[in-house]
Amino acid sequence: MNIKHIVEQDNTVGGRVFNVLIYSLILVSIVTFSVETLPGLDEGVRKVLSVVEAVTVMIFTLEYLLRLFVANRKFRYVFSFYGIIDLVAILPFYVMSGIDLRSLRAFRLLRLFRVLKLLRYSKAMRRFARAFTIAREEIVLFAVVTVLLLYFSAVGIYYFESEAQPEAFKSVFHSLWWAVATLTTVGYGDVYPITLGGRLFTFFILMVGLGIVAVPAGLLASALSKARVEEQDE
Amino acid sequence: MNIKHIVEQDNTVGGRVFNVLIYSLILVSIVTFSVETLPGLDEGVRKVLSVVEAVTVMIFTLEYLLRLFVANRKFRYVFSFYGIIDLVAILPFYVMSGIDLRSLRAFRLLRLFRVLKLLRYSKAMRRFARAFTIAREEIVLFAVVTVLLLYFSAVGIYYFESEAQPEAFKSVFHSLWWAVATLTTVGYGDVYPITLGGRLFTFFILMVGLGIVAVPAGLLASALSKARVEEQDE
Amino acid sequence: MNIKHIVEQDNTVGGRVFNVLIYSLILVSIVTFSVETLPGLDEGVRKVLSVVEAVTVMIFTLEYLLRLFVANRKFRYVFSFYGIIDLVAILPFYVMSGIDLRSLRAFRLLRLFRVLKLLRYSKAMRRFARAFTIAREEIVLFAVVTVLLLYFSAVGIYYFESEAQPEAFKSVFHSLWWAVATLTTVGYGDVYPITLGGRLFTFFILMVGLGIVAVPAGLLASALSKARVEEQDE
Amino acid sequence: MNIKHIVEQDNTVGGRVFNVLIYSLILVSIVTFSVETLPGLDEGVRKVLSVVEAVTVMIFTLEYLLRLFVANRKFRYVFSFYGIIDLVAILPFYVMSGIDLRSLRAFRLLRLFRVLKLLRYSKAMRRFARAFTIAREEIVLFAVVTVLLLYFSAVGIYYFESEAQPEAFKSVFHSLWWAVATLTTVGYGDVYPITLGGRLFTFFILMVGLGIVAVPAGLLASALSKARVEEQDE
Repeated sequence: MNIKHIVEQDNTVGGRVFNVLIYSLILVSIVTFSVETLPGLDEGVRKVLSVVEAVTVMIFTLEYLLRLFVANRKFRYVFSFYGIIDLVAILPFYVMSGIDLRSLRAFRLLRLFRVLKLLRYSKAMRRFARAFTIAREEIVLFAVVTVLLLYFSAVGIYYFESEAQPEAFKSVFHSLWWAVATLTTVGYGDVYPITLGGRLFTFFILMVGLGIVAVPAGLLASALSKARVEEQDE
Repeated sequence: MNIKHIVEQDNTVGGRVFNVLIYSLILVSIVTFSVETLPGLDEGVRKVLSVVEAVTVMIFTLEYLLRLFVANRKFRYVFSFYGIIDLVAILPFYVMSGIDLRSLRAFRLLRLFRVLKLLRYSKAMRRFARAFTIAREEIVLFAVVTVLLLYFSAVGIYYFESEAQPEAFKSVFHSLWWAVATLTTVGYGDVYPITLGGRLFTFFILMVGLGIVAVPAGLLASALSKARVEEQDE
Repeated sequence: MNIKHIVEQDNTVGGRVFNVLIYSLILVSIVTFSVETLPGLDEGVRKVLSVVEAVTVMIFTLEYLLRLFVANRKFRYVFSFYGIIDLVAILPFYVMSGIDLRSLRAFRLLRLFRVLKLLRYSKAMRRFARAFTIAREEIVLFAVVTVLLLYFSAVGIYYFESEAQPEAFKSVFHSLWWAVATLTTVGYGDVYPITLGGRLFTFFILMVGLGIVAVPAGLLASALSKARVEEQDE
Repeated sequence: MNIKHIVEQDNTVGGRVFNVLIYSLILVSIVTFSVETLPGLDEGVRKVLSVVEAVTVMIFTLEYLLRLFVANRKFRYVFSFYGIIDLVAILPFYVMSGIDLRSLRAFRLLRLFRVLKLLRYSKAMRRFARAFTIAREEIVLFAVVTVLLLYFSAVGIYYFESEAQPEAFKSVFHSLWWAVATLTTVGYGDVYPITLGGRLFTFFILMVGLGIVAVPAGLLASALSKARVEEQDE
């Protein structure tokens, strides 16, 4: 068992230990990142966090170099999905050690996608990918129709409400926010129609919209059942 | 390849170019329309927008005349679904060049339906049409039951809440707004029951209502799966 | 074609006219009832409404007597589902002509159920009844589990929030209102957790609850698809 | 028919009576517990409630001892799921008779799980267990993806909104509350984005999220249908 097996495979003991170590560090890195955003943190805590950050980034750098080293086709790894994520996740730390560009540090979160790798090997993930392939066309169609419906709703409510509530329904773009919050049934309650016309319009849009917005989830669920049956037939 | 093929077909190079041009102009027209609703626009921007509008309407007019010219049966095109949409979308511009009837200009948005034409050729759209045919009766039934349930909910909540909240639940019609916002689970929070009776009633209505309002989406999703299977069996 | 055929059947011309008349009157009666609840109505309008009410109730009375007259087994009709509804819908008018018991007049709305009769003859309604039979056991199970979950949520949030928000989460009963609004995802926003514990609890309850509350609609939808297939196989 | 049959079985007359008695007492105990949380209770009512509590706990203690007595393998019952619940539900009463530890008394509610025992014998419950087994992998996958999505949403909205609303979006942890309320479509309305970036982000997250969060319910529903078919094939 050599270093290549440890870094690239996860069906060996060494590979599993390596994976668990990396995933634990990703979790540590995420917790560090989240805690850092807390306001009014103690200076001591802040120092500990920045040390933890430095250490995790260094280990991630080492991991990146190791992966590059053991890769048969270096270029392919560098430009692969995970290769780019691994690099983008560590780069900001080196680039902006002096300047405080908080938002850049968020790139570390891209590492979250590595966690998805764990799922890749599971049967459920394969089925999910299969289900998405089965229902892809319908999902795209519903996404397009949803966007059209959102725009149409925004224009409609703008005509009904812009006079009565010039602040909330300032323009079609502002009305889009209402359309999103309403058709997804989130309904924050920051904007809502108050005129009779606007309320009737909301009723009609919701009657049509509920039967559109909720369909993709149903499609995915039934495609997943189908993917499971296909698998058992093999 | 003559002009007829360009205008009416989209499986030729010319036809595709023509289509892409028209669809791009529809998008430009939509963006123009939306930007125009923004309050506090610069005078210069307003002028540019009105020029863009004039140009797009002129091209749409040209397109209309072309379609009329190449149509084998002129009358049939004029009174077809898309023929009417095409006309209604350009007419307001000519009719009310003097008077400022903003709402009429919104007819231009009907052009959005032209975008649906793109989808018409896709498999997914055919399946969707098939799914709708399969589940039509049930969807109509659920629409009727939903309307009855909404009315029943409005009457119920009116009796429970109109005394405690005479403003929000002024009449059965006002209470209908609460029923729509609640049974679709949007729940803006502008009106909600505060009496014990009203809250118990809301609980019962939601227990029954959730199992009614959410069903059509499930029906559509399962009908779509069925339509896909039918297609593969052919 | 005698009077019995007109009153009891709807596959004859006379029967259809009779039915359409009755259903139209039910609609008129509903509209009258709803308009009456509007505050600040003109005295003249009020008079017209009460005349319309008197006329509709008289016709409904005539209908009731007719149905009783043509029924082969009088007692059976009187104690049948529709027989009771028909009586309860007209009785309040006679009982409380003097006193103003508005709430009693609402019994007229029970006539709405007569509209359901229209649906009874449709294929979709038969399928719906069949679907309900197929999924009855699961729907009952989910109803029981939902009630348990609501109670459990109310107790949980009471412990987390009653100290921080003694007004909104006064007792377990008051907390139940929060549980209903949250698990149905209506989320009015009149009560919501503000403590860390209460928010974490809400998260866990929603993760479990969404997969419970939304299931009956899915069950009904898939049972309806099944009922449709069964029908085609016959 | 001896005491063992009465306590442990519910297909004998004695067993049924015993069960109904215990379940009724569980209900009484729950109602007592809930009423006790009501503020401003009369002193007399309070006394009655504490007596009812003492009596129910005593009967539950007797039941526990009986179950222990008739059990063939005492240790197995003591450490079984229901054995632990039965003990934990009565213990607090004896431990803290002096001190007023309200929260401990809530353990009595664990008895609610006993009610689930009733469901255990029903066909629907077996089907539900089977459905859960069928869809377990996908449900776990969606739970993991949902947690990742919630975290990702919280980080995103934190970057967009923390400057404009430093109070509501104080840290990533505070933003998680928004993510939970939004992706479950509860939308209380206590926190919502106000910046353009935050609103666009909400739109994208909801488009993806609705198709994730609502899927498990659909999976469970279709697995339940499958479990029903399997049962009929046996």
